Amino acid sequence: MTSETPGSATPPAAPIPVPTSPAPDVLRCASMELVVTDLARSREFYVDVLGLVVTAEDEQAVYLRSMEEFIHHNLILRKGEVPAVAAFSYRVRSPEDLDRAEAYYQEMGCPTVRNRTGFVRGVGDSVRVQDPLGFPYEFFHEVEHVERLAWRYDLHTPGALVRIDHFNQVTPDVPRAVDYMENLGFRVTEDIQDDGGTVYAAWMRRKSTVHDTAMTGGTGPRMHHVAFATHEKHNILAICDKLGALRRSDCIERGPGRHGVSNAFYLYLRDPDGHRIEIYTQDYYTGDPDNPRVTWDVHDNQRRDWWGNPVVPSWYTDASTVLDLDGAPVPTRERTDDSEMEVTIGADGFSYTRPDDAEQMPEWKQGEYKLGHQL
Amino acid sequence: MTSETPGSATPPAAPIPVPTSPAPDVLRCASMELVVTDLARSREFYVDVLGLVVTAEDEQAVYLRSMEEFIHHNLILRKGEVPAVAAFSYRVRSPEDLDRAEAYYQEMGCPTVRNRTGFVRGVGDSVRVQDPLGFPYEFFHEVEHVERLAWRYDLHTPGALVRIDHFNQVTPDVPRAVDYMENLGFRVTEDIQDDGGTVYAAWMRRKSTVHDTAMTGGTGPRMHHVAFATHEKHNILAICDKLGALRRSDCIERGPGRHGVSNAFYLYLRDPDGHRIEIYTQDYYTGDPDNPRVTWDVHDNQRRDWWGNPVVPSWYTDASTVLDLDGAPVPTRERTDDSEMEVTIGADGFSYTRPDDAEQMPEWKQGEYKLGHQL
Amino acid sequence: MTSETPGSATPPAAPIPVPTSPAPDVLRCASMELVVTDLARSREFYVDVLGLVVTAEDEQAVYLRSMEEFIHHNLILRKGEVPAVAAFSYRVRSPEDLDRAEAYYQEMGCPTVRNRTGFVRGVGDSVRVQDPLGFPYEFFHEVEHVERLAWRYDLHTPGALVRIDHFNQVTPDVPRAVDYMENLGFRVTEDIQDDGGTVYAAWMRRKSTVHDTAMTGGTGPRMHHVAFATHEKHNILAICDKLGALRRSDCIERGPGRHGVSNAFYLYLRDPDGHRIEIYTQDYYTGDPDNPRVTWDVHDNQRRDWWGNPVVPSWYTDASTVLDLDGAPVPTRERTDDSEMEVTIGADGFSYTRPDDAEQMPEWKQGEYKLGHQL
Amino acid sequence: MTSETPGSATPPAAPIPVPTSPAPDVLRCASMELVVTDLARSREFYVDVLGLVVTAEDEQAVYLRSMEEFIHHNLILRKGEVPAVAAFSYRVRSPEDLDRAEAYYQEMGCPTVRNRTGFVRGVGDSVRVQDPLGFPYEFFHEVEHVERLAWRYDLHTPGALVRIDHFNQVTPDVPRAVDYMENLGFRVTEDIQDDGGTVYAAWMRRKSTVHDTAMTGGTGPRMHHVAFATHEKHNILAICDKLGALRRSDCIERGPGRHGVSNAFYLYLRDPDGHRIEIYTQDYYTGDPDNPRVTWDVHDNQRRDWWGNPVVPSWYTDASTVLDLDGAPVPTRERTDDSEMEVTIGADGFSYTRPDDAEQMPEWKQGEYKLGHQL
Repeated sequence: MTSETPGSATPPAAPIPVPTSPAPDVLRCASMELVVTDLARSREFYVDVLGLVVTAEDEQAVYLRSMEEFIHHNLILRKGEVPAVAAFSYRVRSPEDLDRAEAYYQEMGCPTVRNRTGFVRGVGDSVRVQDPLGFPYEFFHEVEHVERLAWRYDLHTPGALVRIDHFNQVTPDVPRAVDYMENLGFRVTEDIQDDGGTVYAAWMRRKSTVHDTAMTGGTGPRMHHVAFATHEKHNILAICDKLGALRRSDCIERGPGRHGVSNAFYLYLRDPDGHRIEIYTQDYYTGDPDNPRVTWDVHDNQRRDWWGNPVVPSWYTDASTVLDLDGAPVPTRERTDDSEMEVTIGADGFSYTRPDDAEQMPEWKQGEYKLGHQL
Repeated sequence: MTSETPGSATPPAAPIPVPTSPAPDVLRCASMELVVTDLARSREFYVDVLGLVVTAEDEQAVYLRSMEEFIHHNLILRKGEVPAVAAFSYRVRSPEDLDRAEAYYQEMGCPTVRNRTGFVRGVGDSVRVQDPLGFPYEFFHEVEHVERLAWRYDLHTPGALVRIDHFNQVTPDVPRAVDYMENLGFRVTEDIQDDGGTVYAAWMRRKSTVHDTAMTGGTGPRMHHVAFATHEKHNILAICDKLGALRRSDCIERGPGRHGVSNAFYLYLRDPDGHRIEIYTQDYYTGDPDNPRVTWDVHDNQRRDWWGNPVVPSWYTDASTVLDLDGAPVPTRERTDDSEMEVTIGADGFSYTRPDDAEQMPEWKQGEYKLGHQL
Repeated sequence: MTSETPGSATPPAAPIPVPTSPAPDVLRCASMELVVTDLARSREFYVDVLGLVVTAEDEQAVYLRSMEEFIHHNLILRKGEVPAVAAFSYRVRSPEDLDRAEAYYQEMGCPTVRNRTGFVRGVGDSVRVQDPLGFPYEFFHEVEHVERLAWRYDLHTPGALVRIDHFNQVTPDVPRAVDYMENLGFRVTEDIQDDGGTVYAAWMRRKSTVHDTAMTGGTGPRMHHVAFATHEKHNILAICDKLGALRRSDCIERGPGRHGVSNAFYLYLRDPDGHRIEIYTQDYYTGDPDNPRVTWDVHDNQRRDWWGNPVVPSWYTDASTVLDLDGAPVPTRERTDDSEMEVTIGADGFSYTRPDDAEQMPEWKQGEYKLGHQL
Repeated sequence: MTSETPGSATPPAAPIPVPTSPAPDVLRCASMELVVTDLARSREFYVDVLGLVVTAEDEQAVYLRSMEEFIHHNLILRKGEVPAVAAFSYRVRSPEDLDRAEAYYQEMGCPTVRNRTGFVRGVGDSVRVQDPLGFPYEFFHEVEHVERLAWRYDLHTPGALVRIDHFNQVTPDVPRAVDYMENLGFRVTEDIQDDGGTVYAAWMRRKSTVHDTAMTGGTGPRMHHVAFATHEKHNILAICDKLGALRRSDCIERGPGRHGVSNAFYLYLRDPDGHRIEIYTQDYYTGDPDNPRVTWDVHDNQRRDWWGNPVVPSWYTDASTVLDLDGAPVPTRERTDDSEMEVTIGADGFSYTRPDDAEQMPEWKQGEYKLGHQL
């Protein structure tokens, strides 16, 4: 389900119109609604293993939040036939921003649905849209406040997740996606390019962190991951240690490590349905309007992992199906620009540690790189 | 200079007018200008001991920044006769916000000065005002960008300071100060009150942390402290360890500890002139407009230190002189509301660990509390 | 019960004879048997709050171990009328060492009792003695092995205690105690003295850490504390945070901080009966026979806390009663040598941060030191 | 030089005789003498990058120690033509143990050399032997004491190395090596075996940690790595971050990660000559004579990395040449027992996360495992 397969032969995407009506004022990425095939199994993973807190639950869904959250939830697990993402949910500044969101997306010709009492528990008036990239975006303002457990250290686990941090989306044409998101008020903080100007990925923020969402080039629309933050790096290591103790280390896909992009410490897990979860800590303040954009060379071997540790192929190829507003899987389109995996570890790809030193990989590292060539 | 002395017998402060012109859009606390009496000695403290980075310096001043900063400086050490604070400097969103700041303060009847090329190196068009509380506030937008050293781990020390986090100001009438700051666009995140509604301190933010500045009740205007953030708690412990190794542990005034208010981990140092510096890490996201305000009971012994460790008297009584726009010390006025120190550890004061358990302090703790009564 | 009171007017202690028979080969401090007045309340403290693991329990006692222990227990909570210590228990290298222990203490004229099936659950052949200083020492070798939970990260709490580290005993005449312990095969790693040669405390080891036990000068015999180790410093901070969350911060007596002596990071708690528990991490390897002894000047203000934070008086004055082999409280004798508290913070005492700089305490610190003078 | 090549066709090793004379009493692994081809380049790596402290140096050699060491050095870099190891150096308990060492190895028929004034600076009377496995072992007791920098936090770097922890040696026949080491007084703490009883590696200790040295099955004698300890895990991460900042991430060979064996947190680096260095922290106390041995199944994918991250092939195949007492490279012999790499990731190999679940590797992990099959 989540492995990379050729997308349907849809024609090249049309340009995304720029609405004349004002964009909604997005505060932050706030929640994701995941469709999972075995609710009990997923609950066990997110609650018993990762320590997210259950705000509410019923036979169809579990509503989870992180330790420092005061809104009703940051993650919904909803029972369904096929693993997928039903909503990338953003909180907006005011109730009026919902009117703006509705008008904004309607002007772009996108399907929109408004539900004055919310699509999910704990949330009020909401707008869901299928955005120009095909993703199911949700906007809401009204939300039930719940106890912020920041001071409840009696409930914190060694790997306590304290905040939802960001989404990451797979889309074939990154510059097209960036244009759309910039119009929506997002600002690019970092990206990965090559000398020819091909953009492989871009990170964009509303709140003052490196991102609320990122666009990763590939067959899409698909969901690459959703990320939760810990306070410190040892919290992330503790999650790994616990997975080892539970004999579930095989859900560790990549890391832990230090990102080049974002400078954050990271870990990628795969949940029981294969949905990818990042655990993330310590990026930097980006709230000034002239915050310097950092552009990384796609051949820089430290861009994805500052320590140069290899990215596993599945991290590049796998992602989750997203649903349209009727709950049907959204057909995907292939990327036509170069693939980051191919240009870095593929047959003609290359990576360097030092820009002027590409051919001088130490002998004992060459085996690893030849491996890369066989992918 | 910095110890608490009776303020001049100025009449009660007049109400602060609410301007009709729009307030400037403040991004964040950005820098403080400290007057120090021995520039070399202070440079040694901030650079060699604390590891701040020198962006520029000359015979009169040293310009310092934290590891993740991209603007020219977060702290200026300026040589002078008397230790004091010359400016609390905020960055605003746009050049136009300087016009707004000028008009806004002029409408309040405050002294203002504008310097189109900046009052200090590295900064352009700036407005300095003596605000209604008597503090020297500065606003700027244009600033020289410098290298963000976030990725330069070769330069990081064990106690690396990565960000300026907030100011803390002493003022006699906290609600009056809060009203003024709310008009300026700040939002209260936490405060300390008693049952009768007396407000002892309040924390206010523009950026999405617990505060850009706090108002602490006491003889003022004075500067209580300026705070820098580290990534993790062990970084703060490393600063203590280093001060011990340098046989300078006597510059540790209070902590390290966990705040109740803000939930951050903290340490207070005194610099060679007695200016107070906080090292701070891990408060929480506050960027939503309905972020819940946390009000602490002044008698809650965990409000200032979550672990119940006592606050040393100097922390309550000492603060730095502030200068007016001519560089003269601003006369202070005494607080007439109750004193937090007196109501908590003074002769008639009390603190509790559990609200309903005030009289049941363990026997071995009573000596400590009797001590408090003698202050 | 645990506060310092004048000891009985016993005559000066007689010299401790040096046995001609060989001393037992002590491996390490292994367990302490604490008498507690409310077994459920103490169990809640050690298990639910501190996270020690229950190996076994019945109506009279709870047997607890740390996460990396493979022997049956490191702490016994036994129900009794009066809070006290029933045994400081050391593990010896071989079964034959019990014969040696018995002969060794009998030659010194000490009361001894041998129990071939153990005095407590989980332990076999054991010798209990009332040693020449009045302490109830136990020696054993045979012990039930239990699961070492080192890899069971699913069971680790944020403040996981991984090892018993050491005991600390209060005794009036430290050099006399040191002589006795050296004959028993212990080696001094650090001590606190003054210029006149008065010894205030000494740390002694069998295993390769700074100590298995320490002798602290004061009215004794009494038990000062028993210490458990964590892996990292943040684990100790997490214990403080949790105590705050549980509104039990008043059980924090001193710290957290960095010791001068031992260089370890520490925290002192008081259990529901007032027994003192240290949480401790990161001292250094001492296993070489010529490991350099570190002698600290009693007036060095960084000896007890490397950061110069004050030691609370209760830490100097309070300690737990110890029991003789019949379970009766052992009468105490007063210290006649100078008191560390008096010579450092008493009316004629003093402490310095820099040896040659005793009179130059910063102005804002003097209040704190005057306080000290009033103790 | 360091890559695995077929050893010379030497006949099967003869049994190692058991001496009747007593073995020397080894305290701990204490130092390694490395031959490096560019002294300045290696000094830069160990001093400027890793922060080891220079005790002494001359044109031929640099003597380095860790922050908590009080003996003269833990590592010698000696200039030479070919990268190699000249000595694995152990400290013994007493001067008399050198006589014992000499007699012990002579009785085994090993080449021995004694130098009453030491083979290297800072060390006195010493014995060097070529042991029955072909390794150059050194024993010494007399040593110059230097300042223990444990309290010198002003000199600590974010990745401070505080102790030498262990050696790791490659030898074809692990059980044969273990027998020899057990006779020498070492005790096995952990090992890796398969169902058929083949032993792939064994860890052995004198001091109370998991090991002073380990024997790893492979073409030998060769030196696999020498390990230094940090206090905490973040110190190891800081080394990685710094290597990234210096654009030297390609010297990270494996990790960071959590070992299954030893439960320690680890990182493997390759120095400028390809010598492998481990950075290691937080194994457990092993000092009791009945310390439980932990045997890991070679197919357990968490034995080498508790989080299941793959071991890079170079880690299995590369190791450093060792020198005989004349400074000539010691010829190697191939392992005839099964290879750990082949049985786990080779064509017929397999690894499992859960013993009863070998065939249920998640789909997104299979690519990685197929890769393994191609090695």
